[in-house]
Amino acid sequence: MADYKAPVKDMQFILENISRMPQLAQLATFEDATPDMISAILEEAGRVSAEVIAPTNVVGDEQGVKLENGTVKIPDGFAQAYQQYAEGGWGSLQFDPEYGGQGLPYSLSTSVMEMWQSANMSWGLCPLLSQGAVEALYLNGSDELKNTYLPNMVSGEWTGTMNLTEPGAGSDLSVIRSKAVPEGDHYLISGQKIFITWGDHEMADNIIHLVLARLPDAPAGVRGISLFLVPKFLVNENGELGERNDVEVASLEHKLGIHASATCVMAFGENAGAVGYLIGQEGKGLACMFTMMNNARLAVGLQGVAISERAYQQALWYAGDRTQGKAVGFKEEGPILRHADIRRMLMTMKSFTEAGRALAYDACGSLDFAHALEDKVLAGQEKARAAYLTPIVKGWCTEVAQEVTSLGVQVHGGMGFIEETGAAQHFRDARILPIYEGTNSIQALDLVGRKTLSDNGVAAQSVMEEISVTLAQASESMRFKEAAGKMQSALDVAKSVTAQLLSESTDNEYFSGAVAYNYMMMMGTLCGGWQLLRSGLAAEAKQAEGESDPYLEAKQLTALFYVDQVLPRYLSYSAVVTTGSDAIMAFTDEHLEAAFS
Amino acid sequence: MADYKAPVKDMQFILENISRMPQLAQLATFEDATPDMISAILEEAGRVSAEVIAPTNVVGDEQGVKLENGTVKIPDGFAQAYQQYAEGGWGSLQFDPEYGGQGLPYSLSTSVMEMWQSANMSWGLCPLLSQGAVEALYLNGSDELKNTYLPNMVSGEWTGTMNLTEPGAGSDLSVIRSKAVPEGDHYLISGQKIFITWGDHEMADNIIHLVLARLPDAPAGVRGISLFLVPKFLVNENGELGERNDVEVASLEHKLGIHASATCVMAFGENAGAVGYLIGQEGKGLACMFTMMNNARLAVGLQGVAISERAYQQALWYAGDRTQGKAVGFKEEGPILRHADIRRMLMTMKSFTEAGRALAYDACGSLDFAHALEDKVLAGQEKARAAYLTPIVKGWCTEVAQEVTSLGVQVHGGMGFIEETGAAQHFRDARILPIYEGTNSIQALDLVGRKTLSDNGVAAQSVMEEISVTLAQASESMRFKEAAGKMQSALDVAKSVTAQLLSESTDNEYFSGAVAYNYMMMMGTLCGGWQLLRSGLAAEAKQAEGESDPYLEAKQLTALFYVDQVLPRYLSYSAVVTTGSDAIMAFTDEHLEAAFS
Repeated sequence: MADYKAPVKDMQFILENISRMPQLAQLATFEDATPDMISAILEEAGRVSAEVIAPTNVVGDEQGVKLENGTVKIPDGFAQAYQQYAEGGWGSLQFDPEYGGQGLPYSLSTSVMEMWQSANMSWGLCPLLSQGAVEALYLNGSDELKNTYLPNMVSGEWTGTMNLTEPGAGSDLSVIRSKAVPEGDHYLISGQKIFITWGDHEMADNIIHLVLARLPDAPAGVRGISLFLVPKFLVNENGELGERNDVEVASLEHKLGIHASATCVMAFGENAGAVGYLIGQEGKGLACMFTMMNNARLAVGLQGVAISERAYQQALWYAGDRTQGKAVGFKEEGPILRHADIRRMLMTMKSFTEAGRALAYDACGSLDFAHALEDKVLAGQEKARAAYLTPIVKGWCTEVAQEVTSLGVQVHGGMGFIEETGAAQHFRDARILPIYEGTNSIQALDLVGRKTLSDNGVAAQSVMEEISVTLAQASESMRFKEAAGKMQSALDVAKSVTAQLLSESTDNEYFSGAVAYNYMMMMGTLCGGWQLLRSGLAAEAKQAEGESDPYLEAKQLTALFYVDQVLPRYLSYSAVVTTGSDAIMAFTDEHLEAAFS
Repeated sequence: MADYKAPVKDMQFILENISRMPQLAQLATFEDATPDMISAILEEAGRVSAEVIAPTNVVGDEQGVKLENGTVKIPDGFAQAYQQYAEGGWGSLQFDPEYGGQGLPYSLSTSVMEMWQSANMSWGLCPLLSQGAVEALYLNGSDELKNTYLPNMVSGEWTGTMNLTEPGAGSDLSVIRSKAVPEGDHYLISGQKIFITWGDHEMADNIIHLVLARLPDAPAGVRGISLFLVPKFLVNENGELGERNDVEVASLEHKLGIHASATCVMAFGENAGAVGYLIGQEGKGLACMFTMMNNARLAVGLQGVAISERAYQQALWYAGDRTQGKAVGFKEEGPILRHADIRRMLMTMKSFTEAGRALAYDACGSLDFAHALEDKVLAGQEKARAAYLTPIVKGWCTEVAQEVTSLGVQVHGGMGFIEETGAAQHFRDARILPIYEGTNSIQALDLVGRKTLSDNGVAAQSVMEEISVTLAQASESMRFKEAAGKMQSALDVAKSVTAQLLSESTDNEYFSGAVAYNYMMMMGTLCGGWQLLRSGLAAEAKQAEGESDPYLEAKQLTALFYVDQVLPRYLSYSAVVTTGSDAIMAFTDEHLEAAFS
């Protein structure tokens, strides 16, 4: 089984050159984020992820989780790994020091989070969801709730969950039916929630469930939904854990992948009613959830990068070890990575992964600037930039992860289909990513609707202007001049397709929904090339300054590979968008089923 | 769990209009293949596949196969299903009546084979491999061997296997080490073989292993390899089963998918030596294997179509049942297939599946003509046509199956990731298809090397001329005129890229290997559009004759959808081919690993 090595060098490079960490460290809020500090954190997180977390990945997949006597039994090593994670303070990097956080940039905690997800995505979902719960509570909770719950959640002593959907609801939360009945200073919550990640376990002392439910007199639809905090164990006045709350795991799902992550059906209030506390205002539950939803979506996009990195490493080590046949240009047998088609697959994996990493970190960097800049206008621009990039990070990086993990299987040949090899696990695990935290259909609709049509293309235009600036720089470089030309063609097409989107959507109500997916993939492909070109230019500049690490040469070659071998996909995505909705909407239900009638 | 319904209507339409069954039935060899006969066979096979085979699919996946006391234990229902298959004579459709076959066209048996693979791909591998063994023996064996073994193999009383690769060999068979030592009228075989599908089971009375091995004095490399027949039970002079041969299952693989198919490590001659009989000449083992390899590759491409069909049906029934949200243009909640992006996914699945079916059946039809035509020149042309299309059918249809089964999961949303839903099984099962029977790297190299460069593009040119003829017809149709124009652009690009392939491959030894995959996908995308356009024109003609089945309208809409929404992929595949090998070969091994140094 191939080990995981945290790509610390690439993470550090991207933080410095793409997500603008040096500029961020100039701001008072993030003055601690010095290069030395960042390097120390990445190195140590890299060690923990490789030595402590990664070894639990295969055993977790094999053992899975089980429900025994109402409690989720976790795989060997998970609890110890979690303990080291919590004791190391890894869950508190980006949070407010007022609640025990370390006040470091979110983009830095993102790179550390990537390591946990690469090391073990099933296990990593517990920290990931917990951090989402911290954010939702931090941004929306009363001081009393925050003081009672946040310190132990930030420290990792307690974990958190998100309880949104229900049987029959799916992506459409407007129809959820869980109830919250006021009783004194709290509410009694009842109802069933499905797809609840890490809804139960014994890695931590308490679990803080954030639950969407309706008050008795609430209106139908989304405006009737409120958000509640429902702890597994009630917390006494003195802060100690009290009675068990009326929250149970009804069952666990049997899934294609992430076998070691407990996906629970949760039953609230089967007996006396689960004690819950209102977070934010009544009827604003969905808005409260959305305050953390964008970050959660970025985090899932990051999982796409993380599982891609793991699959790439596994395939790379295998292709370097496995001897078979004489490749063109060689007189003797050698490792399969000499074969051009294996090399094409590895390079595709590598370039997608590094493009996705740069894109995800860049979006997180904007959130850091939005948080730390004193100038409200500039902060607002950064926030809008992050909001625009979010569905691309979630949608594109997770679609890319499907291809990368599938290529990882393919590089292994027949061995890739054998579970013991490990490549298949990444392929299975990755398959959830286009589905959860808003399916990629929803990401695509978010990108074309809320993020493009609703501001008349301003945010899109702004990102495309940034791309123009990068292309102007690249056209000054002998090495990247030709690539800049290819990217310019892609950018021109993206501009014209965006203009078409804006104009046709007003005339044809089906247009935006029908083209959304291909539009998202076109923008992702373009943004991936942009980020790799930025990376390549930065590497070229460092070389010009005399640095000679082959990593810098590899980074430039990766950018050139992407422009030649991956970027051309924009041609087909854009061509499909241009044809519009006719071919999709011409079909009636009768036509779909006609072959069987 | 969604049922499987054999798409009899589409199969019959494609046999009639694409693989030229009416013309085939004009030839003496296939005069029995009347429309009534074909209809009766498809209807009955459809019933058996849906009622007998399909119900074993999920239980097979759950139970898997187990090795107990040296014998493979199969899932519930498999043996009974196999018995009905054998008793129905389903394994003998296309074989020579001299050995008990029914002498029907291969293209007809292909459509029946598709049903078994849709119904249960794990189970279906047993008939599939057995038919390959029949072919190899029929084409290469001595009369004595054929008389002894073929009747029971054709009838399905005995099954067959292919024992090719070994530990350390993989795709490179030149290095296999299994031995065959002459002893009297037979040989003693010893060695280990891996990835042997259905290497053991108790569904049939005997298993006939075809095994590649080396004689003691054989030269190194492929010219030293011979083919042997090694029965599980020796056959006495009177044709009755005798002693157990020295062949054992050493272990079973634990796989990502096709859990119910036994993938065996086989040990030959661990004791006295396994009795084997030479098939064909000494040193010609690989050539003998290749006589059936092309058909086996077509069969795997067909599995891609079959699993795509099953995944499409499952997604279609779900999307029609599952109510969620108000789609654009509707005032009330309704099934999710009303949403444009769900519809895009379903249509993509449908159009890929029908394109692949037409392409696979068409290639098989050419083999039928090659077999039945008395004119040797015409027969040779048909054979070359089938040989050219084979790597496209295997490579493209199995790549497409990855996307289709993944879309099948996606249409289900969160439920798609839950194993009980069934969509995930198709996704897992399909993943073997780009790997076995020659990885898709090998298919791509076959297409560019053996099938294009080695005849200087003659076969490619011939298929492209056929496409031109279809486009000329389509441009006469009001409905398909625009689509014909889009296809013409794709064809023009394919011609120019093929010319580039022919010229650059002589100057740059890396070129063909580096571009092979994208070239194959470009040709597959083009051929898929061609086949759907042929189908659409045939459907239009039937409508013009007064037929009003909505299937005919759906077929035309499917062709138009493909041209708008799928065909544009040729733009990116061809653009990548055009860039050549530079971006791939610029990377050294050092660059690949530089991030970790």
